[in-house]
Amino acid sequence: MVITNQDILEFQKLYRATFINSITGFKSASLIGTISNKGNTNLAIFNSVIHVGANPPALGFLMRPTSVERQTYDNIKETGYFTINHINKDIFKKAHQTSAKYEKEISEFDACGLTPDFTKTIKTPYVKESKIKIGLKFVEEKEVKFNKTIFIVGQIIEIILPDDIIAKDGYVDIEKAGTAAISGLDGYHETKRIARLSYAKPGAEPKKI
Amino acid sequence: MVITNQDILEFQKLYRATFINSITGFKSASLIGTISNKGNTNLAIFNSVIHVGANPPALGFLMRPTSVERQTYDNIKETGYFTINHINKDIFKKAHQTSAKYEKEISEFDACGLTPDFTKTIKTPYVKESKIKIGLKFVEEKEVKFNKTIFIVGQIIEIILPDDIIAKDGYVDIEKAGTAAISGLDGYHETKRIARLSYAKPGAEPKKI
Repeated sequence: MVITNQDILEFQKLYRATFINSITGFKSASLIGTISNKGNTNLAIFNSVIHVGANPPALGFLMRPTSVERQTYDNIKETGYFTINHINKDIFKKAHQTSAKYEKEISEFDACGLTPDFTKTIKTPYVKESKIKIGLKFVEEKEVKFNKTIFIVGQIIEIILPDDIIAKDGYVDIEKAGTAAISGLDGYHETKRIARLSYAKPGAEPKKI
Repeated sequence: MVITNQDILEFQKLYRATFINSITGFKSASLIGTISNKGNTNLAIFNSVIHVGANPPALGFLMRPTSVERQTYDNIKETGYFTINHINKDIFKKAHQTSAKYEKEISEFDACGLTPDFTKTIKTPYVKESKIKIGLKFVEEKEVKFNKTIFIVGQIIEIILPDDIIAKDGYVDIEKAGTAAISGLDGYHETKRIARLSYAKPGAEPKKI
């Protein structure tokens, strides 16, 4: 079936949000950890983390700074740091619960049963229960004028992950680490790798590697 | 183990690209279709498509305009339109092959064995073999100064998808449509939904819906 822009605008609000959030394809499942200058920790679920660059290493994510995500934004601007923690099958319910609208004084770590974990490098909390954790330094924000969302870019300061999921060529087996994928606003998925494919060249069919 | 920023900078180039591209979590698997004013079609694989907004409905993706993705960028700027087509299990090899460096005159549709498909709404090609296809009008680009990548935002003009994957609440079952997820630069995954969870509220545990 064909759904037009006009159809979408006429959808009921919650139906529209559910529908449009589903059609991007699978999304990354991350908890973003931050801390205020006063020491209040915050944890929020995001499904928009994407690769920005490898050299220097950088990731980015899109946020709505006026919503429940406000504290994440404020803390990043205050301290200059944030952490990205992969959501795995064991913690997806707790991770989902961080999207509830808690008061500013309440830490989602406490409210949702997740444990703040710290390294010597940055004072921003990681999620102990996460198996792949990335510490980042804020470097840039770009406001999308169209709807006031903000694309936040961070340079990678450190990565904490299990030794045994890194392949010889640098590929990290996030499936082995139990990392979940998200569909829509509330769908959590485990994965099964079909294949890795060789570097594509004109005139040659990609091979399984 | 802990990998520092310094470690990453000292990695061999290809190892670093493979490693950093892996650690964002799972990524969307999309083919972006465009056409030049002269009528040359282009098709390129992207793993950075994310949700930007539901009202008005918009998606975005990040690109390196000076690389193999140049033609996608030029065509979007020339015509103002592009299509996002979900990669499914049946076409992931052909989709991967679009990342090969073909000459400008060669259409990846022809070279990779995918079929351009058109609607009456826009003159930009969809991928016939894709089950979920989105037509977009370019609305904004933001250059990330940090590394000259560009975040492209498009407003959704139309969506073509099977009737039987839309749930009563608007959730689109992309897993049922066979949409793939990507890890790293070359890992393709099928998925198995663990659960959908209810809207999170403070003090109540999320339930499976």
